[in-house]
Amino acid sequence: MMLRKLKAQLESQLPSGLGRLAEFMGVNKNKVKQTLTESSRRLRFWEQAIDGPVAEDVYAGNQPLAQQRFDKLLNDSLSAPQGEVYLIGAGPGDADLLTFKALRLMQKADVVLYDRLVSDEILRLCRVDADMVYVGKARADHAVPQGDMNQMLVDLALEGKRVVRLKGGDPFIFGRGGEEIALLAQHNIPFQVVPGITAASGCAAYAGIPLTHRDYAQSVRFLTGHLKADTPNLNWVEMVHRDETLVFYMGLVGLPLICEGLLSAGRSADTPIALVHNGTRSDQVVVTGTLSTMLDEVAKAKIKAPTLIIVGEVVKLREQLSWFK
Amino acid sequence: MMLRKLKAQLESQLPSGLGRLAEFMGVNKNKVKQTLTESSRRLRFWEQAIDGPVAEDVYAGNQPLAQQRFDKLLNDSLSAPQGEVYLIGAGPGDADLLTFKALRLMQKADVVLYDRLVSDEILRLCRVDADMVYVGKARADHAVPQGDMNQMLVDLALEGKRVVRLKGGDPFIFGRGGEEIALLAQHNIPFQVVPGITAASGCAAYAGIPLTHRDYAQSVRFLTGHLKADTPNLNWVEMVHRDETLVFYMGLVGLPLICEGLLSAGRSADTPIALVHNGTRSDQVVVTGTLSTMLDEVAKAKIKAPTLIIVGEVVKLREQLSWFK
Repeated sequence: MMLRKLKAQLESQLPSGLGRLAEFMGVNKNKVKQTLTESSRRLRFWEQAIDGPVAEDVYAGNQPLAQQRFDKLLNDSLSAPQGEVYLIGAGPGDADLLTFKALRLMQKADVVLYDRLVSDEILRLCRVDADMVYVGKARADHAVPQGDMNQMLVDLALEGKRVVRLKGGDPFIFGRGGEEIALLAQHNIPFQVVPGITAASGCAAYAGIPLTHRDYAQSVRFLTGHLKADTPNLNWVEMVHRDETLVFYMGLVGLPLICEGLLSAGRSADTPIALVHNGTRSDQVVVTGTLSTMLDEVAKAKIKAPTLIIVGEVVKLREQLSWFK
Repeated sequence: MMLRKLKAQLESQLPSGLGRLAEFMGVNKNKVKQTLTESSRRLRFWEQAIDGPVAEDVYAGNQPLAQQRFDKLLNDSLSAPQGEVYLIGAGPGDADLLTFKALRLMQKADVVLYDRLVSDEILRLCRVDADMVYVGKARADHAVPQGDMNQMLVDLALEGKRVVRLKGGDPFIFGRGGEEIALLAQHNIPFQVVPGITAASGCAAYAGIPLTHRDYAQSVRFLTGHLKADTPNLNWVEMVHRDETLVFYMGLVGLPLICEGLLSAGRSADTPIALVHNGTRSDQVVVTGTLSTMLDEVAKAKIKAPTLIIVGEVVKLREQLSWFK
């Protein structure tokens, strides 16, 4: 039974006519080599041929039609390649939380521009021979300023490259993804946006803290905790509702201001609060407390960035619902 | 080059000592069959043996140690199997947005309990011989009441089953996931929570509407649009801020109340609003308008549930950033 299972597993990964396809490709190999002199263009051509209707024709046993389509595809490939950009959310950390779509596009990339928040484990899943470019994004460490980054995406795409812009979490929730694709749109460069598990979802699931709950929270609000003492305060007065969960992204530096702001606006001192460091990763740390005890708790635990803060009655559920070790 | 690429792709999916492993398993086949008479327990046993240290020992060429571990594992498997529950977010619709973790656990399920919002395409990815149980969740169509559902999870796990509870979106954002695992925790039944792409992320990405944006929205709030005329109103007065995006889940029925509530609280009549039907699916429909025109637009477009509503200045960006057809 075991052998059968293994065999089934293997076969499900292999189209049955693979041998025929290999033969077809072998016959056409030299023609492609002579037509497309650049290896990255040959690679892209073969990918299209393997994934598309050409292969389907071969599997179906229709060699003449396959050859016709193949020649047309090869001819089309001669015109200048169109670059494009995939703006991809890499999720909160655990590589297992990557989506299929993300991985598929990562494996097509000629160039990958990535942030500090994307783990090595995930970077290793990009196409082996892709150029990997670190573009920073630690607090106060912007390896590449945002404006230059946007321009870099445009320039690479205009060179005909397939560019993956890989960001932690979700690109449209505190990811500045909108800014990065705006310039692409202005240049009519094709792009796709791949949502990722946002940090709030990931940390909540792995910390055992539902963000909404019929008995405790009917809504949830995502804010940035990237506060500075000299910037205008958040509207704390509107954050005192017991039945709404608050999530602060990148909240470690802002933690004192958050606790102080909520307390002074009248939110109860025993409101539960959790801080999640490296959420969903094997070294995840969760510190819990109340608005009045949290600063001490976090100082004791010697937490570093990146962190996510969850405020609200739902945090109490962790006692019962925590499961990830 | 093409053949090399295919070959590399295949080999990356096969541990090199696979032949040796198959041989080892073959030798032990009958012993397992005699020890574990139930086929579902044999399946689970073989999975553990294939994925775990036994296989590693075989790959490393250490047959005696492998045999020792194998016998211990087999012996341990004799005691009653421990059931467990995987609470899994299936994402917004596009099967390509499933995470690797979700698929891996779905393929281990003995039983799958699923909602109306999970597409057939995704259901087909569950283990072929899993029992598939529909537990409803259309508005006013609860095939199984929530309390019974929670109990069903407990009962199945106590029978030793591996149960997948598959929900659209993310289980901890308007998914009632917290309620479903609370009873499991009380019974000390092991469970895991797998976050999914929540509808807000998915719809935003595929509709070209960033939920936050430096120039337009510094925060985002998720609420439920499942409003009824006779329930207490939402706190509309606190939803008038231009710099905050509002997302209403399941908002179609509540749309008139949402527009009316926001307008009467003073939010500008030309505030952009989008309604996304079947977000991320190939038949996605996006209707946009303003708080004053939206009811007419939606009536014209003859939209049905499921929908998600996005309110705020960011909706205007869609004109420029829309990419998904």
